[in-house]
Amino acid sequence: MTEPRRPTQREPGPDAASPWAGRRRRARDHDLKREAVIRTAAQAFNERGYHHTSLDDIAAALGVTKPTVYYYVANKEQLLFECFLAGLTPIREALRAADRRAGTGRDRLAHVIRGYAAAIASEYGWCMVRAHDQDLGPAMRRQINLLKSEIDQGIRQLLRDGIDDGSIGPCDPKLTAFAMAGALNWIAHWYRADQAMSPVEVADAFVAFFERGLQPRPRAQPAARPARSP
Amino acid sequence: MTEPRRPTQREPGPDAASPWAGRRRRARDHDLKREAVIRTAAQAFNERGYHHTSLDDIAAALGVTKPTVYYYVANKEQLLFECFLAGLTPIREALRAADRRAGTGRDRLAHVIRGYAAAIASEYGWCMVRAHDQDLGPAMRRQINLLKSEIDQGIRQLLRDGIDDGSIGPCDPKLTAFAMAGALNWIAHWYRADQAMSPVEVADAFVAFFERGLQPRPRAQPAARPARSP
Repeated sequence: MTEPRRPTQREPGPDAASPWAGRRRRARDHDLKREAVIRTAAQAFNERGYHHTSLDDIAAALGVTKPTVYYYVANKEQLLFECFLAGLTPIREALRAADRRAGTGRDRLAHVIRGYAAAIASEYGWCMVRAHDQDLGPAMRRQINLLKSEIDQGIRQLLRDGIDDGSIGPCDPKLTAFAMAGALNWIAHWYRADQAMSPVEVADAFVAFFERGLQPRPRAQPAARPARSP
Repeated sequence: MTEPRRPTQREPGPDAASPWAGRRRRARDHDLKREAVIRTAAQAFNERGYHHTSLDDIAAALGVTKPTVYYYVANKEQLLFECFLAGLTPIREALRAADRRAGTGRDRLAHVIRGYAAAIASEYGWCMVRAHDQDLGPAMRRQINLLKSEIDQGIRQLLRDGIDDGSIGPCDPKLTAFAMAGALNWIAHWYRADQAMSPVEVADAFVAFFERGLQPRPRAQPAARPARSP
């Protein structure tokens, strides 16, 4: 019943003998190394702040020279831009996946919230939330703001879908999207990867809170306490 | 039926003839002027960021000389500290008021959320949320972090009170407090005083969202849509 193992991306495929195989491997190596540079930059910005991190620090953390870093990115500003992109990309992917999924607006929104929480709890969270986008030049800043706005609009649309299909109660989609994004973005202020909770557990707790709020259990009889004497 | 008007704080009271009246008025003047310096600093930090604002900018905005600013605060760092304090104080007051109030944990929490939202929508919101507390020296930073932690603990306690009295459903008080604080703090990223909504309207929308989440209306029959073909 077991199919013959298909070569995965990392293994040499049937075309390993192709004269371009080496070139392809080099391209893949280049991408992997570039990704390592960006991830290391994200970790350094996260620890020390953008203004207190130099390209020398990043080169030292990678165990390479500064010219090697320059081989992958033009400057520190571009590194910050790439960190923004690396953090925003999985959220946009979650939105696109939600757009293709079956289910109520509320279910599809929960899918996006989980992807959003995971992105913010990643090493890119600090850059996406705490770095000041004034540190980017106008063109990069415009592009990041476009992507952020696309995410905001996508969440509002899911809220509207949920209101239309009855899975979400009547609410102001703009303010509700702001409240949810704020709660999610704030994860970058308190979450550390060495915490007891995994990003998935944080995401699940947030989905539960967003979905039912502080509602008491049905039939609970709240017992108001009297005012305290001063 | 009209009572005789009582003198308010700003009017000279019956003791205007006291030899200390001038001194008291001067003390009040000093406080008012100091407050104006701090508020002007908050507005400038808000517009330009802490690092791009000088004491000269603040003096110019007040129409005074830099030595006049130094008469009220020691340096720029102290100004940032005072902005933090000015923003955190009304939230701590709302917590203390909630502690004396009658009502369920949920009702008392709603009172704090309204005070919190108003503080973040004020001119001090930027400093409290977007300024980096690394810009403060260790002693000031410790004090601000103590106040922030006191607020966090106060909110968690109100959540626990609500869970105990049945007005709030079972939840993780720590994560729920983080989610609410995040949503509220994020107001500093998007709210501008010239918006169509007043801080009170924003606060009410947030209280409504926190209290009932995305719950559909009772008896709504959600209609899940099928998956979209790619």
